[in-house]
Amino acid sequence: MSAQRPIAITMGDAAGIGPEIVAMAFLQSPEWLAGCFVAGDLACMRRAAAVVEPRVPLAIAELDGIEAVLRAPPRCIPVMQIGKPLEPLPAWGEVAAAAGAKAAECVTWAARAALQGGLSAVVTAPLHKEALAAAGVPYPGHTELLQAEAAAHAGVAVEDMPVRMMLANEELRTVLVSIHVSLRAALAAVTHDNVLQTLRIAHAALLGALGRPPRLAVAGVNPHAGEGGLFGREEIEVVNPAIAAARGEGLDVHGAFAPDTVFMRARRGEFDAVIAMYHDQGLIPVKYLGVEKGVNVTLGLPLVRTSPDHGTAFDIAGTGRADPASLIEAVRMARALARSA
Amino acid sequence: MSAQRPIAITMGDAAGIGPEIVAMAFLQSPEWLAGCFVAGDLACMRRAAAVVEPRVPLAIAELDGIEAVLRAPPRCIPVMQIGKPLEPLPAWGEVAAAAGAKAAECVTWAARAALQGGLSAVVTAPLHKEALAAAGVPYPGHTELLQAEAAAHAGVAVEDMPVRMMLANEELRTVLVSIHVSLRAALAAVTHDNVLQTLRIAHAALLGALGRPPRLAVAGVNPHAGEGGLFGREEIEVVNPAIAAARGEGLDVHGAFAPDTVFMRARRGEFDAVIAMYHDQGLIPVKYLGVEKGVNVTLGLPLVRTSPDHGTAFDIAGTGRADPASLIEAVRMARALARSA
Repeated sequence: MSAQRPIAITMGDAAGIGPEIVAMAFLQSPEWLAGCFVAGDLACMRRAAAVVEPRVPLAIAELDGIEAVLRAPPRCIPVMQIGKPLEPLPAWGEVAAAAGAKAAECVTWAARAALQGGLSAVVTAPLHKEALAAAGVPYPGHTELLQAEAAAHAGVAVEDMPVRMMLANEELRTVLVSIHVSLRAALAAVTHDNVLQTLRIAHAALLGALGRPPRLAVAGVNPHAGEGGLFGREEIEVVNPAIAAARGEGLDVHGAFAPDTVFMRARRGEFDAVIAMYHDQGLIPVKYLGVEKGVNVTLGLPLVRTSPDHGTAFDIAGTGRADPASLIEAVRMARALARSA
Repeated sequence: MSAQRPIAITMGDAAGIGPEIVAMAFLQSPEWLAGCFVAGDLACMRRAAAVVEPRVPLAIAELDGIEAVLRAPPRCIPVMQIGKPLEPLPAWGEVAAAAGAKAAECVTWAARAALQGGLSAVVTAPLHKEALAAAGVPYPGHTELLQAEAAAHAGVAVEDMPVRMMLANEELRTVLVSIHVSLRAALAAVTHDNVLQTLRIAHAALLGALGRPPRLAVAGVNPHAGEGGLFGREEIEVVNPAIAAARGEGLDVHGAFAPDTVFMRARRGEFDAVIAMYHDQGLIPVKYLGVEKGVNVTLGLPLVRTSPDHGTAFDIAGTGRADPASLIEAVRMARALARSA
């Protein structure tokens, strides 16, 4: 682990719970955070450290370069100041354009550092979509920003840098064909190319992470995977041919299976991941046992990116009540993915 | 409990695991099976008892009437012979028209006995759809048969006897707007009337079972319940107005909520049941922790009907390897629902 390059944790929206869950993670799990630093704002992280432990807050160690994290003293939060200091600090729980702009600036900086080879992974604390929009950031969220940076770095169009979201916890990994579209639009997005591309992306990412070809299960679109065409024909016409094509490329893919039991089967160890045909099909089982340990992973990028599976929680920001568990899991998963990358 | 009317357990398809899980349930959980009897075939149940415990099989006690179950000796399987004996007994694991016909005959008998007030509940062991079809039974499964019997008994059209499927385990209840249709057709079935009717049926059934008005949560159709119309408008145009109408009738209904977290919230106790907009939305979370304890309940009928949440498992029928846990849970739930009916 000591030979690994550092991991940047972007602090997220300064008015949300991002800074304080990052500070909590350094306080509670220093062993997991070794080699990590915050790409953020010094004053913002100082405020967060004081929220988390008012009597003896963790010290903030300002880094003058990425490699300086390796020389950071113990029991501190190593922070790289990205751009100008954020002054004044935004009020907790309020949408602020300045916070949105700073959050985007930190992610952009971390993406470029990772693409240039200076980081082993990027872990992103939550940002706020309205604050991004208020700042005029031309991306609705992390994924699109990272995708654009990666495409620019590779000199290709954004369409040629396809990504997929993986949601994972300790017992289940699920990779989604589509995410934030209506269920009707998600049905239309179940095309041969989209399913095959999802399989290729999932295979490549998990091959690295597991060190062996992953056993992938594909959930059907319809109840009982269509029961031979009785309840829908997407499996026969689209999903099964895409599975056959992926098998032709040597991928270890199985299905399409009845959606209502395939996640339980994967949880019991029969498969390494389930390809879900739409957002809720995959996210309902991952979140069912609790959102605390869920981690969001962006697959398909030429960098490792993970994030906690929750938002900025403006309603409790600044109170110290936020739970850093998902962020800590995101760091653990980033480390596992980076080790194999 | 002693004052309750008996519960009939229909033995299901004689070639499947139905008879042996029933025999196992009487062997393993006599305390839960007290007051229950099998509506089935004597020879078939004798064969099943010998599969389950070859050395000292439970005795079969033939009943000459429903009330005779109350005088049945301990450590036996009380069986009412429905119609003529099934001769010859069908081979395990093979589709047989005679087995399909007998299974339907047993369910029809139990439905009529329950509708006439002679039973407190009907628990149905699994039948096989192909065997039903081979026997010329005009219904694809239990639900449609029971619905037709109940409508005939009430003197109304089948359309005026609407039913809904509830799947439940120890920690989650979910009631489905639609079941065995394609996801595309399920989307079309999310209408104001169907959602409102589901809410009314769920409310009435759970009011009885819980002894208080149930707290019902409604899952959205789209990711994040449409996020204010960004990812689909079904919540705004259909689901939320149906919820408002149900509230206007005094029902304690909440939502529409993001589908990916509402089941977790209900599991933690925030709601008594979740109304799911389509089959897999509701069944993925119920089955995620394992199908052993899942129970299927038909709501809306003027009788209590539960069943285990699995099929005939022809591949292991006759081996004694089937698990009676879901059937035993179905008996427990039938008793709880009947107590309040």
